[in-house]
Amino acid sequence: MPHQYVITFGCPDRSGIVAAISTFLAEAGGMIAEAAYHTDPDTGWFFTRQVVTAGSLPFDVHELRDRFGAVARSISPESEWRVTDTGERRRVVILVSKDGHCLYDLLGRVAAGELDVDVSAVVGNHRPLGDITRAHGIPFHHVPFPKGDPEGKAAAFAEVAAIVGFHDPHAVVLARFMQVLPADLCAAWAGRALNIHHSFLPSFVGARPYHQAHARGVKLVGATCHYVTADLDAGPIIEQDVTRVAHGDSVSDIVRKGRDIEKITLARGLRWHLENRVLVHGTRTVVF
Amino acid sequence: MPHQYVITFGCPDRSGIVAAISTFLAEAGGMIAEAAYHTDPDTGWFFTRQVVTAGSLPFDVHELRDRFGAVARSISPESEWRVTDTGERRRVVILVSKDGHCLYDLLGRVAAGELDVDVSAVVGNHRPLGDITRAHGIPFHHVPFPKGDPEGKAAAFAEVAAIVGFHDPHAVVLARFMQVLPADLCAAWAGRALNIHHSFLPSFVGARPYHQAHARGVKLVGATCHYVTADLDAGPIIEQDVTRVAHGDSVSDIVRKGRDIEKITLARGLRWHLENRVLVHGTRTVVF
Amino acid sequence: MPHQYVITFGCPDRSGIVAAISTFLAEAGGMIAEAAYHTDPDTGWFFTRQVVTAGSLPFDVHELRDRFGAVARSISPESEWRVTDTGERRRVVILVSKDGHCLYDLLGRVAAGELDVDVSAVVGNHRPLGDITRAHGIPFHHVPFPKGDPEGKAAAFAEVAAIVGFHDPHAVVLARFMQVLPADLCAAWAGRALNIHHSFLPSFVGARPYHQAHARGVKLVGATCHYVTADLDAGPIIEQDVTRVAHGDSVSDIVRKGRDIEKITLARGLRWHLENRVLVHGTRTVVF
Amino acid sequence: MPHQYVITFGCPDRSGIVAAISTFLAEAGGMIAEAAYHTDPDTGWFFTRQVVTAGSLPFDVHELRDRFGAVARSISPESEWRVTDTGERRRVVILVSKDGHCLYDLLGRVAAGELDVDVSAVVGNHRPLGDITRAHGIPFHHVPFPKGDPEGKAAAFAEVAAIVGFHDPHAVVLARFMQVLPADLCAAWAGRALNIHHSFLPSFVGARPYHQAHARGVKLVGATCHYVTADLDAGPIIEQDVTRVAHGDSVSDIVRKGRDIEKITLARGLRWHLENRVLVHGTRTVVF
Repeated sequence: MPHQYVITFGCPDRSGIVAAISTFLAEAGGMIAEAAYHTDPDTGWFFTRQVVTAGSLPFDVHELRDRFGAVARSISPESEWRVTDTGERRRVVILVSKDGHCLYDLLGRVAAGELDVDVSAVVGNHRPLGDITRAHGIPFHHVPFPKGDPEGKAAAFAEVAAIVGFHDPHAVVLARFMQVLPADLCAAWAGRALNIHHSFLPSFVGARPYHQAHARGVKLVGATCHYVTADLDAGPIIEQDVTRVAHGDSVSDIVRKGRDIEKITLARGLRWHLENRVLVHGTRTVVF
Repeated sequence: MPHQYVITFGCPDRSGIVAAISTFLAEAGGMIAEAAYHTDPDTGWFFTRQVVTAGSLPFDVHELRDRFGAVARSISPESEWRVTDTGERRRVVILVSKDGHCLYDLLGRVAAGELDVDVSAVVGNHRPLGDITRAHGIPFHHVPFPKGDPEGKAAAFAEVAAIVGFHDPHAVVLARFMQVLPADLCAAWAGRALNIHHSFLPSFVGARPYHQAHARGVKLVGATCHYVTADLDAGPIIEQDVTRVAHGDSVSDIVRKGRDIEKITLARGLRWHLENRVLVHGTRTVVF
Repeated sequence: MPHQYVITFGCPDRSGIVAAISTFLAEAGGMIAEAAYHTDPDTGWFFTRQVVTAGSLPFDVHELRDRFGAVARSISPESEWRVTDTGERRRVVILVSKDGHCLYDLLGRVAAGELDVDVSAVVGNHRPLGDITRAHGIPFHHVPFPKGDPEGKAAAFAEVAAIVGFHDPHAVVLARFMQVLPADLCAAWAGRALNIHHSFLPSFVGARPYHQAHARGVKLVGATCHYVTADLDAGPIIEQDVTRVAHGDSVSDIVRKGRDIEKITLARGLRWHLENRVLVHGTRTVVF
Repeated sequence: MPHQYVITFGCPDRSGIVAAISTFLAEAGGMIAEAAYHTDPDTGWFFTRQVVTAGSLPFDVHELRDRFGAVARSISPESEWRVTDTGERRRVVILVSKDGHCLYDLLGRVAAGELDVDVSAVVGNHRPLGDITRAHGIPFHHVPFPKGDPEGKAAAFAEVAAIVGFHDPHAVVLARFMQVLPADLCAAWAGRALNIHHSFLPSFVGARPYHQAHARGVKLVGATCHYVTADLDAGPIIEQDVTRVAHGDSVSDIVRKGRDIEKITLARGLRWHLENRVLVHGTRTVVF
């Protein structure tokens, strides 16, 4: 991939926003590799994402931030914006429990060069996924979450928070972690903690969604990648997908079919998050 | 289509059921054009659907019913079975309100020879869909449902019940009818009233599901064809499908995209119902 | 829908194009309702589509064309651009043969208010689709194409060309027309003649694609909506979709399942074409 | 999984086949866990697959083969049948080149307990996939295929054949192996060599299918899992799937999106093959 800067920007819509941003970039000689715009008619909010070839600008990312910040403020005092540099390698910490399918999938994508990130660490509630993690040259931290022991769990979360804090990753991925994050961690990791829920939300919130789906007799099951918020399974949705099931599928068949959807949905959501394609606005997302 | 008899059968599973049925058919010389079997491991219930070429049997459908009934009873006193004759033309009554997309679609399929049924009548809460109905040579009954007038509604339902009763159809199709059936009609039409709900159930039960979907920010919307029961939007699901939506889709875009899914899902569900492919067991369906 | 102007524009990519266009629009006070950009890395060609609220500009569509034309020429002498006015109602002529499923679908969409166009005329190689066409209040022209009679066919095409020429429609839709257009009509209708081919092109070019698909044993069949060019079934693809088939599906089952995909794919392609979302570049399309 | 016997059977259709098979099983007390039937109307060939709970029969798999063989011969001298024992662990040999995505996926599925097989060996044309293979405790054989050296290639194939011959696996999986099998290996491995081709066959046969797809401007790309035959990319298709691409997708985006489809399609096809769900008849498959 060429070296690029990614600008994301949002503010209340008015005439002249695109002109202001594109004129700024054009006057600096910036070549736009990719650009997307959206105005939400319900909220009247304007969103854009622009990808600029780094080498086309006569200044570095710090000066781009200074200059673009001034443009953003001139457009609106309510502007929300961010400039990221693809030259800065993305770091990810993955949290797992016993089920390894999402972890295997993510590690395979990284090893195959398909997902260009550093997995800084994997944290596991149980030991068995340590071997594959270490085989990929990635540190594995075993942090047990004792059942029915609130203090023990709080201590475990503090340990996880310390590990995540040490690596300061661009994404914390709950890859079938199976523990409900406490409100303080939801806040601390806001906008960068991604969960994969094994249902097509808002159907089948909570525990054992595939069992719920089987009992209801649905003809499709799905998975949802969403940002983690204090409200369980209700965070802004990044991506969803479904697969067909039939009367002949037992719960274990549904689990198996659903796993393929979980893996793909999580991988897509994570990629889009790391490429700064996902802009959150209230409880909804814009995915450019 | 060749003339066929369709046998559906269910009972508690045990060894020898298939042998008993297939031996009965083989001894009568019956050629099986299609056969499907399923055992539900949760309930231990066995289901089968067999399609026999009518001309291969030395007796008519009445004698087939007599003979097969004896076989069924010998297999299990709990047997539930049915023998239908494809030589008997299927009749359908369609209930509509203002939105015509499902009606246009069904009438088009019938006219194109794709859905081989007689539409005996269309009943509309409003007048505008009368013209297209009559253009297809089908009687249209305008039965208004006065808002906020329980007695008027009860009288309207009685009129609809009379029309349906007169035609005694194989299926009553609620093609975006938008009125909640009273419990007595749910009972009277049990197992032959099909509704199309414009969401991927159990998500977004009730009113304005596309608005609910937009507000939640889901990335796919769907439709569900189900049997009508007294429990709103909770009847056994026959078929579901979904289509992708994105942040750029307004509610009216979602409505438009969803309609294509509604039409297809309803048409599939209706076809399967009329071909006796759908066996209901509790709140779930087997679709052979 | 609000009154809007749709600008489509393409030229060799260079820095400053977006700035030039958006500054022009901003200085005129134009509110951009929708905007999309794409640069093709293979050809180095830049594409954009901008939707401007008509009422936000202080001039009419003619002056917008004059002014935007000057901007376009100043950006590049190779610019290709178009400004269309959603206030001008779209006209469509539909060509059919015997199979009515696509015609029924399009007429139903128009009647249901889902596809906001005038169907100026339907031209049929056979008579049976005349009734439904006239029931929708649309003129039907029966123009027979005599088999094995090249002169008769040429005369028939001349008649079709005269009908189309009279209405000068925004789209000529070959809705399972089954006749190969002569080169002069391909040229005359270039960029506005849409065909629906009942396969997932480039698989199964030519006659009886569903039979070909069945013989090959594929597990999915599809449909392709494309612009008609002199090279049969090789025109730029606007939209494609597929549906699953299985070993139990006979050719007639595949035909039936495929029809749903044909209808939806054609309807999507036609909508996008009429909304000027489709930009052709060589043998490929950009669909904004 | 419970211990089961899987019976597959095919012969020219006639009345009484199901009765003969099911009576044989019923008289032995066999509980049928799963049964499927199909008659191909084109060839008049009957197919069935029956899964019997091993413990319900009073004899072992050898005697089941003897007894069922007699039944099969009594039904038709042209009968083709097979009885397999799920108690016999399935063995797989995987052939790879440089691209590891399918290998990572398969190894992850095996490690996660999702695909219950022994991977006896992985054979690689290049070295890099050796590490991950060994990390899973599986032997890796590096067998280079020298470019432009027919004798060297023949020697390499002989070495691969020896490795495969030693393990005598139930499936030889060409997981993006990129070498065309010689006719003698196609023959030796007939019916158990599975390839994943990265296109929706019959589109884009041969080299660089994603590049071909991009050049043609298709709106969906796919993958095909098929049995390897001497006729390149023309073997019986087991499974296919597709994913949507758009004008903004470069060839490398298409490659990435396509890989997810390759992995899933190969995994599905391999599972069905190993469960004896795939019956080949001519150039087509029945997948029960």
